[in-house]
Formats: sequence, C-alpha cells, structure tokens
Amino acid sequence: MRVDVDRLLSLASQGKLRALGRLLTLVEHPGPQALQVLAKVAPRAGNAQVIGFTGIPGAGKSTLVSRVITHLRRRGYKVAVIAIDPSSPYSGGSIMGDRLRMQEHAADPGVFIRSIPTRGLKGGLSMAALAMIEVFDALGYEKIVIETVGVGQSEVDVAHAAHTIVVVTMPGAGDDIQMLKAGVMEIGDIYVVNKSDKPEANKTAAYLQFALEKEGIGRGEGWAPRLVKTSAVLGQGVDKLVDAIEEHWEYLKKSGVAAKRLTSRRILLAKLMAEAMLSKSLEEVINETKSELEEVFKENVTAAFTLSHELARRAAERLLKEIKT
Amino acid sequence: MRVDVDRLLSLASQGKLRALGRLLTLVEHPGPQALQVLAKVAPRAGNAQVIGFTGIPGAGKSTLVSRVITHLRRRGYKVAVIAIDPSSPYSGGSIMGDRLRMQEHAADPGVFIRSIPTRGLKGGLSMAALAMIEVFDALGYEKIVIETVGVGQSEVDVAHAAHTIVVVTMPGAGDDIQMLKAGVMEIGDIYVVNKSDKPEANKTAAYLQFALEKEGIGRGEGWAPRLVKTSAVLGQGVDKLVDAIEEHWEYLKKSGVAAKRLTSRRILLAKLMAEAMLSKSLEEVINETKSELEEVFKENVTAAFTLSHELARRAAERLLKEIKT
Repeated sequence: MRVDVDRLLSLASQGKLRALGRLLTLVEHPGPQALQVLAKVAPRAGNAQVIGFTGIPGAGKSTLVSRVITHLRRRGYKVAVIAIDPSSPYSGGSIMGDRLRMQEHAADPGVFIRSIPTRGLKGGLSMAALAMIEVFDALGYEKIVIETVGVGQSEVDVAHAAHTIVVVTMPGAGDDIQMLKAGVMEIGDIYVVNKSDKPEANKTAAYLQFALEKEGIGRGEGWAPRLVKTSAVLGQGVDKLVDAIEEHWEYLKKSGVAAKRLTSRRILLAKLMAEAMLSKSLEEVINETKSELEEVFKENVTAAFTLSHELARRAAERLLKEIKT
Repeated sequence: MRVDVDRLLSLASQGKLRALGRLLTLVEHPGPQALQVLAKVAPRAGNAQVIGFTGIPGAGKSTLVSRVITHLRRRGYKVAVIAIDPSSPYSGGSIMGDRLRMQEHAADPGVFIRSIPTRGLKGGLSMAALAMIEVFDALGYEKIVIETVGVGQSEVDVAHAAHTIVVVTMPGAGDDIQMLKAGVMEIGDIYVVNKSDKPEANKTAAYLQFALEKEGIGRGEGWAPRLVKTSAVLGQGVDKLVDAIEEHWEYLKKSGVAAKRLTSRRILLAKLMAEAMLSKSLEEVINETKSELEEVFKENVTAAFTLSHELARRAAERLLKEIKT
C-alpha cells in the first residue's frame, strides 16, 4: 500500500499524534519510504537540541529524565523522548513505579515518548533513532531527549549525534577512572551525580571534578564539562541541570559547533542508511543461497571462508542492479 | 609485513601461546589475512563445545565462569575463554577481587583467556568472537567459554553461534517474565540461579521453573532447558552445572544439532566478514568525499538524503573493483 507522506506530514503538523507515530514507524526501517519521509522533513528540521542521557545502571537515570522533561515543559518547550535503553520504563521496562512515572507525561500533549524496539530493526538502533530525530525536529519539538544505556556501538553512534550528552552517575559509583573511560561515559558535556542525598555524594562529586579537570574526561570542543548534583527522587538540583543543558545549547549555537554537529549527524544517518541497504542485499543473497552455502561448508570448509568474498561480491552486484532499476 | 601463517599455526600447535595470541589478533579484523588464517584452521576445527554465558548484571557471572573453568580443567579439558562483557574482569574490569579471580587461572597452561576489545574492532564484536572460536577449536581447545552481557545485537549473534547458552540469574531477579523475554535471556539451554544461599532462592527457582515449563522460555530443539542452583562464591552446585553443560553437549552431538549449529555458526561468520567488507568500502567512500558531503548537506538537505543511495552505489562499485583486482 502506498502511503501518502504529504498527508501524514500535514496531519502531524496539525498535532495529530497518530500521524506522527506513523511517520516515526516509516523512518524506523531503511528503504525508499524512509528516504522519502526524510527528504520531506529535513528542510524543516535543524532547530532542536538533541540531548543524550546515558549512565550506569541503577543511577536513577529514568527518574531523572522524567524530572528533566517536567522542567523543560515548565520552560515552555515541546519535548520528544526517544528511549533506547532496554531497561528503561519507556522502552518496556516492567517495574511498576517506572511505568507510573511514564504516565506522568502521558496526558501532556507537549511530550511525545517513543521507545525504540531493541529487536527486529533492520537498520539498527542508531539509524532508527537518528531518523526519528529528523521527524521530531521538523515537527517543532524543541528538545529531543534520547535515553541510552551507554554500551555498544549503537549507543556511541547516537551519543555522537547528540548535541549535549548528559552522563548520569551516583555516589560511590564514580570513584573509578576506568569506568569513566568506557564508551560514551568519557564524552559527556554534563556529568550528574544523582542520588546526591546519599552519603559519599560529596566525595564522588569531588572525585569526578578531579577527573574532569585532570584526566581530560569530557567531549571538549571548547566547553569545560559541567558537574551537577541532583536527587531526582527528591526533586533537587534538576533545575540546575536544566540550566546547564540550556547553557550548553547556547554555547553550541554561538560557537558554531551546533551546526557542525547537525551536519555530522546527517552524514552519519546517510551512512547508516547506505550500510543498511548493503546489509539488506547481503541478507537476501544469503537467504536465496542458504542450502547451497550449507553444502559448501559441509564439503569443503577451507574453500568456504573464501565465500565471504563471493557473498560480498554478489551483494554488491545485487544492490547495483536494484539501484539502476 | 607478510605474516607466515603456517609457521604461526605450527608454533601454536606446539603450545606456543604467543603464536596463538598472534593468530587471534590476525582474525580479529576482517580482511584477506583473517580469511587466510580461517581457511587454514577451519579444517582442523569443529570439535569444541562453545558455551555462552550471559545474564543480568550483579548475578555473579564472572565468579561463576571462573569456577566452571576450574571444574572443566579438573575433568581434563583444555579451556579457552572469550570475554566480551565490558564489565568483565577478563575484558579489563577494574575491581580488584575480580582481577585476582582471573589470576587463578593465569598459571594454568590449559586455560587461555582472551578478551575482546569493545572498541576499535572493524568487523564488530561478533565477527571477532566467531573467528576466534575457529582458531581455538582448531588448536585443540575442547571447551570454549564466551562471556557476554546479553544485550545488543553482537551478543545475540554470539549466543546464537554457541552450542550451549547458560543464562545466569540470582534470587529476586528472575521474578519477572518480561526480563526473561529480553534478548538472549529467553534462549537459554541451562538457567542458573546463582547466589542460591540467599533468601528467596527457592522462590526464584520455582518461578523460573514455571517460566521454563509454561512460558516456553528456552531455545528448545528437543532439549528441555535445565535449571541449576549454584553459589559460585561458596563453590556450591558448580559440579552440577558442569554436568548439565556436558549432558547438553552429549545431547547436541547425538541429535545432530551440534553439526547444524557448527554450520550456522560458520555461515554467520562468512556473512559478518562479507558485511565488514561492504562497510569498509562505504567507510572509504565517505572518508574520501567528506567535504563534498558536507557541502551537499549544507546546500540542499532534501537532496542530501537521496545521497544514501549514491553512497551505497559507490561503495558497491568500489568493492567490486577491489575484488576483481
């Protein structure tokens, strides 16, 4: 069935959330339809601040994100949330309290929460997330919050595509430079010690401050990473965190880094789309020749590995043929 | 510099661990050298049992793996460990106690531990892990243990390539069917309630047993997933776990499933290699045209996304040219 993208876009622009949801679904998977939607939304996009939240498990990231949304709403922003963390309540976590927390924003038309399925995505998490950013951005969402777990290549991709990376840690957990040097932890723009009502919060904050100053932790680019203490549960420090997020955005815009990150985000998206097309061809080649492959591997395992070359060749040829038609 | 693969193989066969280490490094990254090594080792491989350990954080997986290694050694097996979990002591975790645990096996020539760097791998974690399996297998390691975190596509790939999947949970953590339905958790062959000296262990075990029987959790294929209670720290139940691992292996061999899994593992490896080659071409195309791409995105963002097609086309052409020469 042909989808009328223009109609969906016009409905979504009028605030019809179902239409928005359908557009998001269209860009989730790589292919001509996703490209069509992106080509239409991209000219309107490029204004939103993309804020990535990452951090260690148990640091209370989800509660904090929920509080940050509340504060952003109070400041008048339309907020979109893309949840990638499989343990996140937004992406189907199951702790009752967290479910309720999500409900907090369910009745607010200025908040749109979308979780990314961690399975079955043909182009991978990163592609889906980056494509969704363009859609939200085009439809006037001014702050786009992405919640990730901070491990794995997908999360690194997404983090790199964010304007602002908030790394959430907690008392006792940050006393280890190794941990901060893993994945996106080390490229934060803002570091949060959540649960700061707990003992050792000051020690952890002091430790982190030291790491930020002496160990070169943080993404840099002329911005000295900020440290904020919060207690999401008690509602403390969240306003300061949102201030820091806003200050970072102002800095990025003034310095021209925001525009630079927008371009790299889009090149990354085009790359992920291209990669997905190549993978799709490969997948098809393998499915079509499965029994043939099985035979080869049983009969002559030495020759079999040179098959990788053959598979890549066939996938490339198939793709070229497809593009031409 | 040209590497003499035959010489390395012959040295590694004589038990020279440095030569083995170099072979592992050669297959870590996709390319002609990796293919050359694989083509040489594959005919000798196909005998080892690949055992994947996965589970929730905090369940004591690393301690349990270490105990399992000890038991496998007592039974006379040569054991290789591939550690993918970034929080694992084997892959550079930093908790002192864990480091010491690793040391347990450091002096034992019958145990080879190799951690997979979670960054900088051109072909991804799965490709590196699957290629290493072939090398270890060819060199007479009879049990190959893979430790993963169980989230992310790489871990799913690796788990699917394992003969036996051991899912490690702990008291209180398994009382939630949702959790068991995430990622590789639901395709276990053996489920372990570790820390079974803790209260609620029986409740969790009963719950899990119910899920295994009624919810269809487990990989199936004619094998009813087994439940084992252990306390890795107290050394309890580990022998029973190793019994279950052995029984599963016997079952796989008798039923013919072992051979089937060997073939799928190799097809997956050939696929990942082909995918890596396609990605490499794409990467090169993008690097060479970066400034051109930046211009296009700045000037005409609508047209820009159709560039994905163009990028894929160029990557495919480049690869075909490369393969021909």
